[in-house]
Amino acid sequence: MINANSLKDFTRRVFQAIGCSETDAEQAATVLVQADLRGVDSHGVARLAGYVRLYDHGRLNPTPDVRIIHESPSTAVVNGDKGLGLVVGPKAMQIAIDKARVAGTGWVAVRNSNHFGIAGYHAMLALENDMIGWAMTNAAPLVSPTFSLDKLLGTNPIAVAVPALTQPPFVADFATTAVAYGKLEILQRTNQDAPLGWAQDAAGQPTTDAHAVRNGGGLLPLGSDREHGSHKGYALGAMVDIFTGVLSGANYGPWVPPFATAGFMAAQAGVGEGTGHFFGAMRIDAFRPADEFKQHMDQWIAAFRQARAVDGKQVLIPGDPEREMEAIRAAEGIPLIEPVLKSLEELAEKLRIPFIA
Amino acid sequence: MINANSLKDFTRRVFQAIGCSETDAEQAATVLVQADLRGVDSHGVARLAGYVRLYDHGRLNPTPDVRIIHESPSTAVVNGDKGLGLVVGPKAMQIAIDKARVAGTGWVAVRNSNHFGIAGYHAMLALENDMIGWAMTNAAPLVSPTFSLDKLLGTNPIAVAVPALTQPPFVADFATTAVAYGKLEILQRTNQDAPLGWAQDAAGQPTTDAHAVRNGGGLLPLGSDREHGSHKGYALGAMVDIFTGVLSGANYGPWVPPFATAGFMAAQAGVGEGTGHFFGAMRIDAFRPADEFKQHMDQWIAAFRQARAVDGKQVLIPGDPEREMEAIRAAEGIPLIEPVLKSLEELAEKLRIPFIA
Repeated sequence: MINANSLKDFTRRVFQAIGCSETDAEQAATVLVQADLRGVDSHGVARLAGYVRLYDHGRLNPTPDVRIIHESPSTAVVNGDKGLGLVVGPKAMQIAIDKARVAGTGWVAVRNSNHFGIAGYHAMLALENDMIGWAMTNAAPLVSPTFSLDKLLGTNPIAVAVPALTQPPFVADFATTAVAYGKLEILQRTNQDAPLGWAQDAAGQPTTDAHAVRNGGGLLPLGSDREHGSHKGYALGAMVDIFTGVLSGANYGPWVPPFATAGFMAAQAGVGEGTGHFFGAMRIDAFRPADEFKQHMDQWIAAFRQARAVDGKQVLIPGDPEREMEAIRAAEGIPLIEPVLKSLEELAEKLRIPFIA
Repeated sequence: MINANSLKDFTRRVFQAIGCSETDAEQAATVLVQADLRGVDSHGVARLAGYVRLYDHGRLNPTPDVRIIHESPSTAVVNGDKGLGLVVGPKAMQIAIDKARVAGTGWVAVRNSNHFGIAGYHAMLALENDMIGWAMTNAAPLVSPTFSLDKLLGTNPIAVAVPALTQPPFVADFATTAVAYGKLEILQRTNQDAPLGWAQDAAGQPTTDAHAVRNGGGLLPLGSDREHGSHKGYALGAMVDIFTGVLSGANYGPWVPPFATAGFMAAQAGVGEGTGHFFGAMRIDAFRPADEFKQHMDQWIAAFRQARAVDGKQVLIPGDPEREMEAIRAAEGIPLIEPVLKSLEELAEKLRIPFIA
């Protein structure tokens, strides 16, 4: 078990070692370790070595000039200047929040960024301002649209955070696929089969092969197959791609650059700049008094939490599992699997910084 | 086969007969017949008798004063005054479009409305203004969240319409469930079984019984079960409910009034007013030049349309099937099943208006 603060200190030192300012490194470390705290292990320090590889290959600018290149009262397009999405994201979200203060809502599309960690972190920045937060990103193509043999979409997550009064906030944060790719990676490590409906093989047929996506197959959109609504999951992933990629001037569809996969590190000819994000902030009292809204959110949450459940289960509110995990891991520490711990040790050595205390 | 214009004329006369102005009746008829044209038969004139029942039971105001009750530069809350959603919807969408002209985006939450027909109609109103359109609505609770035995959400559709340049627009319009309830109704008529993954029984177990929702069961969220991401479909339906119901001051969750079901016609004590909608309009050039965006949308659409497909299939763009159906039915007429045709004849008789010419 690693103490969260120790892990964050180390992560900050890694980002400083590749040239990030202390402020930016602190921000990036906060987002990454937040993922580990919330139990989204695939998006935490497991990716730290990947960010460093991005830097090694010239795809990451540690001192970006993150700037607005176009705006209206409620919108902006931001150029992330090849910065860490972990840093560009919160800056863009702050612009959305500032716009919302004046215009009621703020919507910021970002081009020329990189992987931004967990979408939920960015959406939740709105909460303390009595705003609803949105965050979406596109990602490298791993997903086959309904009937497609080609992979054209990323797992393209959507996060929406809504404040309540006495209840914890509603925080939805999910890939627009049947499962996140990280779930398949867990099965790959132990050579286990996946349930049907998560992936298809190279011929577009349902498969239990957890390695299928790397062997010509693809992840399946939420809904899994046409009969169960995969065209809806595909439409959702497409919406995310259009908002994050096409509206911003980033890459989209098959042109979105991979995160940090060996063999795909060179910047390829694309249709825009880098990876795209989209953020939104909606001031509650641009619609109705904030306390009134939050009282109704409490009532909404109570109605769902108190629903009759199937034996041994309970009806959860989006955000419940991650918040419960965060409480546990903040107290007990973060468990890191051996390959991740090893990758961090190698980073310490490579960058000549002290390892986790 | 019924000619679309004849069907629209008749539908307009029905709405005029219950007291709607000619303009409102024309608008309502346009939305309803558009559903039949686009092949969404469950949301077209099949529901016309239901709207009249709403009027008969005092739940529908044929001459509503649709008004803004709160606003900011980019937002408004509209009171639908118990009007037809078919009429309130386009008025609210127009407010969103007007806001977007000035503020870049416009977002309108609506309370005190009724069923608004197909969500896609409203979202598509943005297209001719070089805007992206959003439309969502909540609906009577038919859906059981993951692990719930109770029905707490409607089929809560999301529609997003995005303009392209030479390609037809991208129009996603889907219920946030594995299937729309209309698909189960079709099976009910012929006593056929449903695929597993569409509905659960009263004990929360997967069932093939197409009648399960009326017998204590529930429709399942997109994703069907926890292993295939039903918690994501639940989160999506919940987001729609919060935006349309809680943000607007309408009813939400289990309190959303049914459309026009016998036995549930009386207005029950709720947590807000009527049914809720949410509309959005985003001016493309509040983000980047409209022609540049639309050229990239053409390229996006081409990349997806040209993807390699499984044998005998092709990769579709959201909106393709409905647009193709519209072309066919505009030319050849609209097929109405016998019970629907009969319900229209009964309406003509009851309201003493001429039947379809």
